[in-house]
Amino acid sequence: MASTSTKVVDIHTHMYPPAYVDILTSRDTIPLIRKFEGAKDPRYIILKDELEALHKAAADGSAPSHLPGRPVTSHYSSLDQKIHFMDTHKIDISVISLANPWLDFVATEAASETAKSVNQEFSDMCAKHPGRLFFFGTLPLTVTPEDLLASISHIRSLKYCRGVILGTTGLGKGLDDPALLPVFKELAENKLTIFLHPHYGLPSEVWGPRSSDEYGHVLPLALGFPMETTIAVARMYLAGVFDKVPELRMLLAHSGGTLPFLAGRIESCIVHDGHLVREGKVTPARRTIWQVLKEQVYLDAVIYSEVGLKAAIDASGVDRLMFGTDHPFFPPLTSDEQGEWESMTWNMEAVKKALGDGSEGTKAVMGGNAVQVLRLYEE
Amino acid sequence: MASTSTKVVDIHTHMYPPAYVDILTSRDTIPLIRKFEGAKDPRYIILKDELEALHKAAADGSAPSHLPGRPVTSHYSSLDQKIHFMDTHKIDISVISLANPWLDFVATEAASETAKSVNQEFSDMCAKHPGRLFFFGTLPLTVTPEDLLASISHIRSLKYCRGVILGTTGLGKGLDDPALLPVFKELAENKLTIFLHPHYGLPSEVWGPRSSDEYGHVLPLALGFPMETTIAVARMYLAGVFDKVPELRMLLAHSGGTLPFLAGRIESCIVHDGHLVREGKVTPARRTIWQVLKEQVYLDAVIYSEVGLKAAIDASGVDRLMFGTDHPFFPPLTSDEQGEWESMTWNMEAVKKALGDGSEGTKAVMGGNAVQVLRLYEE
Repeated sequence: MASTSTKVVDIHTHMYPPAYVDILTSRDTIPLIRKFEGAKDPRYIILKDELEALHKAAADGSAPSHLPGRPVTSHYSSLDQKIHFMDTHKIDISVISLANPWLDFVATEAASETAKSVNQEFSDMCAKHPGRLFFFGTLPLTVTPEDLLASISHIRSLKYCRGVILGTTGLGKGLDDPALLPVFKELAENKLTIFLHPHYGLPSEVWGPRSSDEYGHVLPLALGFPMETTIAVARMYLAGVFDKVPELRMLLAHSGGTLPFLAGRIESCIVHDGHLVREGKVTPARRTIWQVLKEQVYLDAVIYSEVGLKAAIDASGVDRLMFGTDHPFFPPLTSDEQGEWESMTWNMEAVKKALGDGSEGTKAVMGGNAVQVLRLYEE
Repeated sequence: MASTSTKVVDIHTHMYPPAYVDILTSRDTIPLIRKFEGAKDPRYIILKDELEALHKAAADGSAPSHLPGRPVTSHYSSLDQKIHFMDTHKIDISVISLANPWLDFVATEAASETAKSVNQEFSDMCAKHPGRLFFFGTLPLTVTPEDLLASISHIRSLKYCRGVILGTTGLGKGLDDPALLPVFKELAENKLTIFLHPHYGLPSEVWGPRSSDEYGHVLPLALGFPMETTIAVARMYLAGVFDKVPELRMLLAHSGGTLPFLAGRIESCIVHDGHLVREGKVTPARRTIWQVLKEQVYLDAVIYSEVGLKAAIDASGVDRLMFGTDHPFFPPLTSDEQGEWESMTWNMEAVKKALGDGSEGTKAVMGGNAVQVLRLYEE
């Protein structure tokens, strides 16, 4: 890694461009954005219980005890604010992406055009800061696979696009849906990386009867998101997607959810599964989940701890981890939003502790890997 | 750790004593045990889709394409077989426990007596091999908290009992149910360790539309179990159980599910939760999940990989990990069941690779910690 770039790159950083905020504001079901009298910023509501609290308050004529959801500050919609965040944290390059829920909810007839305009808007933003901004595009998912291919054709024509951000539901049946194989192949052939990102979490009953008044949103966000990612990738793996599309490049949010930690158990459960063994599916030639982690998957470093980061590096290799911040989610609550964010400092400290401050490994994870893997230069 | 025991101890090893098999055989809903004509062993059925396949085959009059569930071999019910497994793998001491689903399903009026007889049966088994066998007892959970306390009183009178095995549902509302606090306190005061073990997994829809014919039982077993454990402990932590019962000793199955990997994200989600911060619940005095992992929790080493084991050690400390096999689950499918099991070799290799063959750390994890923490000697 002698020629490792010393650039700092943030590959996990979101934006809701103004046109997208308008779409969410016009909705009546989650996800949606609502403005509240007296509140500085509109609120983004993604969880069912938040919407129910809102409806209940409206029906009672009472004021909700606190505003639901989270504020959509200028950090989400303003390009100047993104550049300010980058400058404050000495981030040289950001690979921006639309945040969840992307376009999963857009009606079929509008989906392709909406995707086109959102991707064009991201492209235009990147063109305003050449060399500092690249982006992951967004696919329409309520369309036919053919329309999806047309959308990829548009995306690959956009100069600063390096892949697509994708949720876990695919066309409604998950990412192990065989209908997605042509889409994965098309993305792979065009060297477009899939940035896999969770949104739907787990069914709410798993969090138990105690409400968000007691636990906030810690359980669905801290556990639901990474578990969703883990399940989605395990399903793809079991369906043989990584074998069928050997050139697939997939970047997993939040250091792979929990895959690095659970890979051993997954392997054990496969070789000990009576049905799979009887069906001849457990062969010596089978590619293990470890091989997929080391050869086909990249992990972001958004894990907020040295313990987790080391496991991610142990599983995938120091050349496959890429720094990210998840900005503008998780803003600081007890200090100035224009100052330092813990999402930056916790994740950067984890890298430095795991690999050594100033080491080649740290340079690779902090930016070198992203520059190389995502080709973050003029082509 | 100069005086570390060199004994090899298996703290995660299950048995279904014959009387318990009879209870499961008499049931019509999962969990249940069924005998099939021509099959050597009865089959244990815990998953809904297995039971449905069975009912469908019965209604059609057709033979099921393969037998549902997994065989309940003599490994589950025979004490001689357990000793044979221990001898084969050079295990000096086993801390045996009833396997899931324990007594969660037993009708209230029978629960206390059933628990008493099961615990007595375990006690009698241990007495047949003094010094080689200890056990985790089983609590009736369909009873009142008062009857639960009476059951603990019986358990603590049993010479070889060192704790209780517990699922994640508690009295039906999870382990964050305030009604369980007196139970946790009573266990803690009697230095009885809680061995927390998953059973219920996650709602089946998260595994997607593809059936167990394609994926076997890999998803619910490899992912559902550890995710269930993680959620249960996170809920306890957020409810303040570890603060309210400072002497609580809890051993988490499967190296804590995914807690070591996700602890950083849990902490980040807490300090960034607007509601919890506004409510004053995020104070500098707050004990972090890291502190709970390092001070109140023990982890077994049933993780089948060096990557996962190292993360578990990094999170909780080498003095808090305890070797286990999960015997008799996951028997070898392509070699003799009387010979070596990968559940032993994979987990032992992970310890040796992570800590060094013959090192003090390896001795501690392979048995020294268990001897000390669980007092595995005559008292």
